[in-house]
Amino acid sequence: MSAVMETKSENASFGGVQGVYSHASDVCGCEMTFAVYLPPQIAEGQKIPVLWYLSGLTCTHENAMTKAGAQGWAAEQGIALIFPDTSPRGDRIADDPAYDLGQGAGFYVNATQDPWAANYRMWDYIVHELPELVFEHFPLDRDRQGITGHSMGGHGALTIAMTHPEIYRSLSAISPIANPSDSDWGRKQFTAYLGEDEATWAPHDASILMRDRGYPDTVLIDQGAKDQFLDLLKPEALAEAAASRQQPTEFRLIDGYDHSYFYVASVIEDHIRFHAARLRDIP
Amino acid sequence: MSAVMETKSENASFGGVQGVYSHASDVCGCEMTFAVYLPPQIAEGQKIPVLWYLSGLTCTHENAMTKAGAQGWAAEQGIALIFPDTSPRGDRIADDPAYDLGQGAGFYVNATQDPWAANYRMWDYIVHELPELVFEHFPLDRDRQGITGHSMGGHGALTIAMTHPEIYRSLSAISPIANPSDSDWGRKQFTAYLGEDEATWAPHDASILMRDRGYPDTVLIDQGAKDQFLDLLKPEALAEAAASRQQPTEFRLIDGYDHSYFYVASVIEDHIRFHAARLRDIP
Repeated sequence: MSAVMETKSENASFGGVQGVYSHASDVCGCEMTFAVYLPPQIAEGQKIPVLWYLSGLTCTHENAMTKAGAQGWAAEQGIALIFPDTSPRGDRIADDPAYDLGQGAGFYVNATQDPWAANYRMWDYIVHELPELVFEHFPLDRDRQGITGHSMGGHGALTIAMTHPEIYRSLSAISPIANPSDSDWGRKQFTAYLGEDEATWAPHDASILMRDRGYPDTVLIDQGAKDQFLDLLKPEALAEAAASRQQPTEFRLIDGYDHSYFYVASVIEDHIRFHAARLRDIP
Repeated sequence: MSAVMETKSENASFGGVQGVYSHASDVCGCEMTFAVYLPPQIAEGQKIPVLWYLSGLTCTHENAMTKAGAQGWAAEQGIALIFPDTSPRGDRIADDPAYDLGQGAGFYVNATQDPWAANYRMWDYIVHELPELVFEHFPLDRDRQGITGHSMGGHGALTIAMTHPEIYRSLSAISPIANPSDSDWGRKQFTAYLGEDEATWAPHDASILMRDRGYPDTVLIDQGAKDQFLDLLKPEALAEAAASRQQPTEFRLIDGYDHSYFYVASVIEDHIRFHAARLRDIP
């Protein structure tokens, strides 16, 4: 059965179209909103590669869409961008007063604990449900998907791609939460969403996955050296794990930059070129 | 006496610094906030050229700073950007329930009518007071200033530069309010701020100034062909005035684009290159 999707807005952008859409999500049990940037190459009739961009704490689909400055580079490289939301949303959906738990803070896991288990299934939403919808509605190439993200979204990109390298053929992250099992950006949320048993957390910790699995291609990771959240992000754990397994990695610690979207915008060109080059080479 | 300025934030951006600052404005009689982007070339110790970016209705200093994607091109071209606010602000400042009058809608005039005359002096603020402050605090080249803007800000850029071509040595506009004397984006505001006598409006109408004065260099004007506000912007009046006086103009009506910042971001590279090339050539 064809999935229904509502167009919220479409704006011309760098010769392509920046759209915002919503749909009734079975997985999350609520209306979900997401954004898609289609580059001008879409007019040539070929299916084009896709870069998933997962956003950080407090973000919706909108932050990266308006602040990352990604569309111009996606247009140049002929790659589509998808900006999902970061959690289920709505008055009926469980929430928490803290900015880093509940709505806006889904952490890209399938929650197993009440009151979160009913709706907080962002892993399945990102990996399964939303792709089915976008590949049905847009001329995107399912065989050429990359994934990136910022902060909590970098955590999502790393954990999802290391678990499903057969789906996500290129991987990068910007200022990712790199070792959530050992951070206040992680322990609190995993306890709430997944419970006390830390064995259930391990599949959602990029540093543990990097140690145990790695990724079959070079991973690009950017981290601002003046990031105000370095103590929570723990890039050193991921760097150590990558170095230990001799994972091909381009790990850039860049002087001066903080955690803001001014930083994301400053490096997004490199990330889009990185993914486009890899996805282009897939036969 | 040295003017006092408070730093609200500074973020690294494309090798330079995106700062937000505030100061007590004598001209506006309130605290005013503005943003400055300093490109990496500032470190070389030379005074660098400046592009003033005036924003549109409802905007503060923040919209263009976060959504226009201008910093990367300013860094490449070695030009500073200044993003002023669009009106005086504060609980004590006159306002109107409509989005297009009062706070967020200063229209870059010196109001002469009550209740606006006390604070709504955006012409003097942009042309005199804010430059004094920024040239005191930042290593910018007073002899190499350009000006641009979007919508109401395009109106401001055009009217200010055609009045003061000796200050603003390069001029462009994006989707400007081009003929406010003949538009609901203009007649209402000029009546409120300047009074019923339309003779006082003429110095603030880009199409009239273009007919009567023109500008001593090529003017770049961009306008989306699918702009939802074409009836209010009236680009045809400005185009006709420019053609009539044989004003060197690059007037681009670009298919598909609307009035949003997705459009501004799509053309900002061209505007920054346009200004940088002209300002570089000033001896």
